[in-house]
Amino acid sequence: MTDTAYHDLIGQDLHGVRRVIRSGAYRAHTAGLGRGFLQVNLAILPESHALDFMRYCQRNPKPCPLTGVSDTGNPMMFTMGRDIDIRTDVPAYNIYRNGKLSESVTDITDIWTDDLVVFALGCSFTFEDALQRAGIPMWHIDNNRTVPMYRSNIDTVPAGPFKGKMVVSMRAIPKDRVAEVTDISRRFPLAHGAPVHAGDPTEIGITDIAHPDWGDPAPVPDGHVPVFWACGVTPQVAIEAAKLPLCITHRPGHMLITDIAEDAEVPVLAPA
Amino acid sequence: MTDTAYHDLIGQDLHGVRRVIRSGAYRAHTAGLGRGFLQVNLAILPESHALDFMRYCQRNPKPCPLTGVSDTGNPMMFTMGRDIDIRTDVPAYNIYRNGKLSESVTDITDIWTDDLVVFALGCSFTFEDALQRAGIPMWHIDNNRTVPMYRSNIDTVPAGPFKGKMVVSMRAIPKDRVAEVTDISRRFPLAHGAPVHAGDPTEIGITDIAHPDWGDPAPVPDGHVPVFWACGVTPQVAIEAAKLPLCITHRPGHMLITDIAEDAEVPVLAPA
Repeated sequence: MTDTAYHDLIGQDLHGVRRVIRSGAYRAHTAGLGRGFLQVNLAILPESHALDFMRYCQRNPKPCPLTGVSDTGNPMMFTMGRDIDIRTDVPAYNIYRNGKLSESVTDITDIWTDDLVVFALGCSFTFEDALQRAGIPMWHIDNNRTVPMYRSNIDTVPAGPFKGKMVVSMRAIPKDRVAEVTDISRRFPLAHGAPVHAGDPTEIGITDIAHPDWGDPAPVPDGHVPVFWACGVTPQVAIEAAKLPLCITHRPGHMLITDIAEDAEVPVLAPA
Repeated sequence: MTDTAYHDLIGQDLHGVRRVIRSGAYRAHTAGLGRGFLQVNLAILPESHALDFMRYCQRNPKPCPLTGVSDTGNPMMFTMGRDIDIRTDVPAYNIYRNGKLSESVTDITDIWTDDLVVFALGCSFTFEDALQRAGIPMWHIDNNRTVPMYRSNIDTVPAGPFKGKMVVSMRAIPKDRVAEVTDISRRFPLAHGAPVHAGDPTEIGITDIAHPDWGDPAPVPDGHVPVFWACGVTPQVAIEAAKLPLCITHRPGHMLITDIAEDAEVPVLAPA
């Protein structure tokens, strides 16, 4: 069966989705799957860097909204789902060694060691859903592109070896709806919260909006304002720059789907 | 000058307040000081327990809303203020050794070591201010008592040696305003968020509401409902039970006053 057929078939059956991903049969992106449930970015690091990375997330909650942290060496992400094995339950992973991408895989069982700590971070899917429900078109979604992302001149607050500029994503919003968009996205602090900037891109160090550093270019039509949100690529860049011996992330777009409702007050399951 | 006179004099001058506290001249509680700015609870632990404690806070954000974490050994709480020295800028501290209160002091300069990590946690002052502004009377404030607190039967999510039942505080709310109170306090996730329970105390394991485990009893008049919030005593109890060799906290009610506006989207200053 093709990934597209699977996508339609498993659609909204949350545990079915994770079962098929765990089996290795589904390896594609997770946009639109398990709608209503929080999807998260992953960063898996050796415990020796975990405290500094956790401080980095606490100090930069807009680009790095921390939603879950595993026990050291325990691959079960028990605070975010009743049966999430982080070694198998993500469609695709990127393995970085000494700051360089070394391979992409669909299972990390062989790489897992008992000194690893898993960090889960909220992602933009959550607020994009909310904006679409409010009737704000998302051009990159409607046109099947990746949102444009830029390295801004905004400093993050450093922690240990983790530091660098904030990466931002851009969505063009009708002028008269920027305030509403700000209010809506502010309600999702675990999905980057309110925009960090609206208007002239040069004010945050972006000189050429037509050439994003990541993702695809997107138009800013007349009557629209470019609006910039803190982006989950920020911690990935900080991790790469820190040149850790080993770091495992999800492959972009290939998220972990959790059991946490998108509108939950806190992203934590009560003890079973 | 008496503490009460100081309280009136330094009132709302934020940096004046911290200067007087740093000098050692003001040693009383901080309720009502520096209004509009976040006040925080403190837990200062050896780095060996910092990752587990930070996981405990992440997993229990309602009782333990983390607002700041220091670098290891650095007493300057630079993410929450331009000049906060944690060794001197709190009116009074409690020192715990092996889980037992060993002394109360007004300065921890002599006790500070370069393996300590400071955790700052949001406190109920923030949402109580908001409720009072909405015209909800706070009986314990109006009557100069400490809010009643109870050990509930709600389990926290454990992390390493940190675990235990959730401690809750109770405020009696007019029946017809419980929904409004819930909405208001939910807007302050860094100050315990929405209540964890409203109504029959026995449902959360509280058998005798007239005898709180901490604080003073408070009446629940006819037409009122007892409403329970997650309480910042929860992590203190978890820390005591973990019997760390050393732990330093603020003395209850004697908080750190930060430079962070109470309604800030994130509790972090941009880099200077």
